[in-house]
Amino acid sequence: MTDEFETGLPSVRQMQALIKDNTEVEVKLVTSDLVVGKLRWQDTNCLCVIDHYDQPTIVWKQAIVFVKPKA
Amino acid sequence: MTDEFETGLPSVRQMQALIKDNTEVEVKLVTSDLVVGKLRWQDTNCLCVIDHYDQPTIVWKQAIVFVKPKA
Amino acid sequence: MTDEFETGLPSVRQMQALIKDNTEVEVKLVTSDLVVGKLRWQDTNCLCVIDHYDQPTIVWKQAIVFVKPKA
Amino acid sequence: MTDEFETGLPSVRQMQALIKDNTEVEVKLVTSDLVVGKLRWQDTNCLCVIDHYDQPTIVWKQAIVFVKPKA
Amino acid sequence: MTDEFETGLPSVRQMQALIKDNTEVEVKLVTSDLVVGKLRWQDTNCLCVIDHYDQPTIVWKQAIVFVKPKA
Amino acid sequence: MTDEFETGLPSVRQMQALIKDNTEVEVKLVTSDLVVGKLRWQDTNCLCVIDHYDQPTIVWKQAIVFVKPKA
Repeated sequence: MTDEFETGLPSVRQMQALIKDNTEVEVKLVTSDLVVGKLRWQDTNCLCVIDHYDQPTIVWKQAIVFVKPKA
Repeated sequence: MTDEFETGLPSVRQMQALIKDNTEVEVKLVTSDLVVGKLRWQDTNCLCVIDHYDQPTIVWKQAIVFVKPKA
Repeated sequence: MTDEFETGLPSVRQMQALIKDNTEVEVKLVTSDLVVGKLRWQDTNCLCVIDHYDQPTIVWKQAIVFVKPKA
Repeated sequence: MTDEFETGLPSVRQMQALIKDNTEVEVKLVTSDLVVGKLRWQDTNCLCVIDHYDQPTIVWKQAIVFVKPKA
Repeated sequence: MTDEFETGLPSVRQMQALIKDNTEVEVKLVTSDLVVGKLRWQDTNCLCVIDHYDQPTIVWKQAIVFVKPKA
Repeated sequence: MTDEFETGLPSVRQMQALIKDNTEVEVKLVTSDLVVGKLRWQDTNCLCVIDHYDQPTIVWKQAIVFVKPKA
């Protein structure tokens, strides 16, 4: 259920860049929910998204369909 | 089907903190069901949620989309 | 696709307790089907649920969303 | 994506018994499709179901929700 | 996310036979889409289906529900 | 959750060819979303699709149903 989580991987580095740059992103989930906010942290299982009210959502990576930086 | 389950992982520690602090959470599932309650225990396969009537729901981690502490 | 299946795990022991105690359970599946009955056996792949007509349903664990003892 | 496939497992033996006994089964899939017929063979990836017109359907085990012998 | 991909497995050999024999098949996917055409190649991740207009669709095996030779 | 990612695999090479040739593709996802654009990079977890407005979408491979070069 876990991703490869090596810090050299492009996908892992991209997520790290989005965290570091405080980029607002859309995270589309398998339920078709769209979680919008800033990425705070990731590990091998999860990605933490902070919304506009500063509330965290701990997203399971297994449920991610795509991540899209907001234009 | 199993998560990485090392106690050093941020995601595992966050779940442990939510258990310890008796925080009410929303657990969104792949069926779009939302299970609301307090986390009692977790292991590598499952997460146990206790609802307002003190009834347990044993949630398979493979089916979790996100966990959100109630604001 | 298989769970961790060590008899020391809380989730595995809980299922064993539900089998031994003949507890009626609801098993929610990824299709949103709800299978209701008593658990007869489990292994690493499957969980066998016996319904009111004594008919078995062999549930693939990969498809389980949650298990809930009937209140 | 593959199941454990050891011939000693209850779930594997049950499928083998259903194949050997020519039992008619219902196979529920993640798309909510129900494939009805007799099991001809299984391996670690797939389960082959023969319908009433003697046509095979090669079902991916990853997509199985449950198997139910017809009453 | 990958299947077992040993050429001795019945399911792998069946797919190879369908490729070799140019059999028209229906591939049912988790989205309920049905891809119809002839199988050109497979590997551990994917199955390539060629439709009537000779266009390839590279199907991820993780998304396959069943494969059915057209009657 | 990760694919086999060996550069010798047909599926990996096909994706590399689509990246190199700047081919426009349709990527069908488990939510039934269709992402249309050009592939920029892939790794073991993700595939990056650039749309007509030059915006990237980082698609999780676990969520891919099929990839189809636009005719």
